[in-house]
Amino acid sequence: MEAFQEVLGAIPAYIPVIADAKRGDIGNTARNYASALFDVYGCDAATVSPYLGYDSVAPFLAYREKGVLLLCRTSNPGARDFQDLLVQEENGQTRPLYEVVARRVQSWNEAGNCGLVVGATYPRELRAIRSLCPGMPILVPGVGSQGGDLEASVEAGVDGYGERAIIAVSRAILYASDDSDYAAAAAYEARSLRDRINEARGKI
Amino acid sequence: MEAFQEVLGAIPAYIPVIADAKRGDIGNTARNYASALFDVYGCDAATVSPYLGYDSVAPFLAYREKGVLLLCRTSNPGARDFQDLLVQEENGQTRPLYEVVARRVQSWNEAGNCGLVVGATYPRELRAIRSLCPGMPILVPGVGSQGGDLEASVEAGVDGYGERAIIAVSRAILYASDDSDYAAAAAYEARSLRDRINEARGKI
Repeated sequence: MEAFQEVLGAIPAYIPVIADAKRGDIGNTARNYASALFDVYGCDAATVSPYLGYDSVAPFLAYREKGVLLLCRTSNPGARDFQDLLVQEENGQTRPLYEVVARRVQSWNEAGNCGLVVGATYPRELRAIRSLCPGMPILVPGVGSQGGDLEASVEAGVDGYGERAIIAVSRAILYASDDSDYAAAAAYEARSLRDRINEARGKI
Repeated sequence: MEAFQEVLGAIPAYIPVIADAKRGDIGNTARNYASALFDVYGCDAATVSPYLGYDSVAPFLAYREKGVLLLCRTSNPGARDFQDLLVQEENGQTRPLYEVVARRVQSWNEAGNCGLVVGATYPRELRAIRSLCPGMPILVPGVGSQGGDLEASVEAGVDGYGERAIIAVSRAILYASDDSDYAAAAAYEARSLRDRINEARGKI
């Protein structure tokens, strides 16, 4: 918690902070989690797990100026275990659980503050979710240490204007060097990823 | 975090501690969450969210002497949103997502350290899950402030020996009184719940 607060203190005010907290709890607890992340720590957005349903997310959504990013199709191998299960809908058709989550989140998006988390490791699923939610911000982790393809993720993840895909890279930047040049190495890695992202956007 | 550590310090060693942390993150982060809860804080069990699948749970399961309680059918109203969705299985049959989760958790239970979280507010679903997982410990929150029926939960939740249902009551005990008699009031409430639980077990 001390490291977290130090990092928050070091981030300039003009850079938005997404707390990848993956909260998911009943309403009473969710209210306190939302307040901790948004009121106490001043984060600008948070990731939230959908499994507990609407009342576990509503206390986050109530902060209309803050972003709420729902886990949809995550970047890890186990994402397949439940998120890919075929759900039978009322009309008898089936669709994977992650698509049901994406559509449900769209119906929760009254304040326009919702987003989705979709792993870079699954570009096909990312493309399907982008086409279901054409205007929604999508946080795309999994590039770097997790092996996701950067260019494919940009191409599948951006909206019609080449925007709203937030390509999140953590370990590949954080651990770019474990020597005394770690700060310069991390900055170099971050800038070169930024340039590659913009180059990929230019090709769309 | 300070309050959490103070509470942990006040609990006698013979009382097992379940950290209702609802963790659910990719393997690398899950390893650190498991280590924090089990190695650093010394908790005896933790609740974990299933949405991210096996590799998000495996680091907890690796602590073979610790309990891992997977959210299955939670106690809140939003539990219906995703947990009740009908999943189409390979044989063409459908079953609700929470049953798929319960069966999957059984397949993960090699060390015999798995359990499930099923809300007291849904005795019918609790009974269905108990019959799918006859020997598994089930943590049953939702009695008290959330309105779950204690006797119905005991009856639906216990195993064939009248055991393995952990009826969890938080706010109804914690806030039994907001006056100076709060400790005595909480103790009275806890004992009276214990007696009602044992009485309900006696009727089975």
